[in-house]
Amino acid sequence: MQQLRQRWQARDTLLCVGLDPDIKRLPSAVGSGPGAFLAFCRAIVDATAPYVCAFKPQIAYFAAQGREAELEALIRHVHEAHPGIPVILDAKRGDIGDTARLYAEEAFERYDADAVTVNPYLGKESVEPYFAWPDRGVVLLCRTSNPGSAWLQEYPPGAPVFERVAVAAREWNQHDNLMLVAGATYPEDLGRIRALVGEMPLLVPGIGAQGGDLAEVLSHGLTGEGEGLVVNMSRAVLYASNGSDFEAAAGRVAAEFCTEVRRLRGS
Amino acid sequence: MQQLRQRWQARDTLLCVGLDPDIKRLPSAVGSGPGAFLAFCRAIVDATAPYVCAFKPQIAYFAAQGREAELEALIRHVHEAHPGIPVILDAKRGDIGDTARLYAEEAFERYDADAVTVNPYLGKESVEPYFAWPDRGVVLLCRTSNPGSAWLQEYPPGAPVFERVAVAAREWNQHDNLMLVAGATYPEDLGRIRALVGEMPLLVPGIGAQGGDLAEVLSHGLTGEGEGLVVNMSRAVLYASNGSDFEAAAGRVAAEFCTEVRRLRGS
Repeated sequence: MQQLRQRWQARDTLLCVGLDPDIKRLPSAVGSGPGAFLAFCRAIVDATAPYVCAFKPQIAYFAAQGREAELEALIRHVHEAHPGIPVILDAKRGDIGDTARLYAEEAFERYDADAVTVNPYLGKESVEPYFAWPDRGVVLLCRTSNPGSAWLQEYPPGAPVFERVAVAAREWNQHDNLMLVAGATYPEDLGRIRALVGEMPLLVPGIGAQGGDLAEVLSHGLTGEGEGLVVNMSRAVLYASNGSDFEAAAGRVAAEFCTEVRRLRGS
Repeated sequence: MQQLRQRWQARDTLLCVGLDPDIKRLPSAVGSGPGAFLAFCRAIVDATAPYVCAFKPQIAYFAAQGREAELEALIRHVHEAHPGIPVILDAKRGDIGDTARLYAEEAFERYDADAVTVNPYLGKESVEPYFAWPDRGVVLLCRTSNPGSAWLQEYPPGAPVFERVAVAAREWNQHDNLMLVAGATYPEDLGRIRALVGEMPLLVPGIGAQGGDLAEVLSHGLTGEGEGLVVNMSRAVLYASNGSDFEAAAGRVAAEFCTEVRRLRGS
């Protein structure tokens, strides 16, 4: 949380770059050898680091093909080359007791992530084991950006599940290390979450390919201090160009996003 | 599903042995070298295979320490040494679109699991990608066995989330490859789920250390044909003895469980 607030203030940015590298979409400039996958990820990190408040690698893109060592190396690279930028491991784990503790160990010790996304379906016992690492964060799913999410998260009308999660997160947040996921595609729900959780940071997917509107996100989600949001972009940055200029293009998209945020919030 | 039904009928067993190997609790008989962890898991599999309808490795116990290769080897061993016993990978993944597809690829291709546990919080989009593997199964969390689960899963009273998941699972089950998790610790909810989903198999954690009652589980959960349940036991089998007789002890606990099920259902 300290790293995040530091980045918000010192760099005036709300951007999180999601590292979801599709092996089939790597630019030819990184080659096609065994090192191409990691080289691409590192290049995106280096090109966008000046413009971000966080990086968010998605573990499935690594685990599906046994690339755990590359994920370890990538997160190590962020910490070494860009100290002070927190890494949110997007794993959406959800289990209890010893198993949750092992997932925390996986995220915080093996991968050295600063925070990890967690699913609330199993209740408080799926969140508490992570608090044994008081200097790390937990990002709890609350209102996700996909169309099918309403089926459970907006049920029942009037007092929906996502609000129940937000209220609980506020109660569970004894260590000031909880965040919530609030999708850009439902800006009014995002505003409702903001009203329930005060200054708690919100991770916001759904800008870009999923059609979320940045102005709406800012108007509903910013705190009174004009902060509190970690707005994720993945594909729009990663695949800004598939030519040899892919790094410059990724950096440009990230920089433009920051400029747009500044314009919209008048900072 | 075919493998499961075959095991239910040919072996007259509802037992699933959960493979949650705690590195700190390995019996000294397996040694302490780098091969001890996998040797322990294989020994438990071999000792209990005659008595089970499924095995359920829990991925966190492997992933926390980078033991993915051992998990691959363990599942390969089940398929080779005990063909016909389905492997349920307990991963409780929950994501959408490309990411869910990659988690399915991880479970079904990399690990060659026959089924995988999935979290319903993100809705139908987090389940559908798995159906691209029509010969594999999805085990959706519905009513979990832990005390803290009621907070979300029994909300709101009268028409709770877990029933909403059960009703949806029945609708989504076009390929006859869905199961639900229904904890032994809430047998009346288990009965309610059974009433909602017909013959759909239910994976039942919570017997043993968590205090679920087997007679209650059977009376509320069995189908009209006296089947439909996959009852998980982990620690009671894995740590039946920590002496050199750990394999025989594990086999004995598994056999006794089967005898008890036969007695209770009068088969």
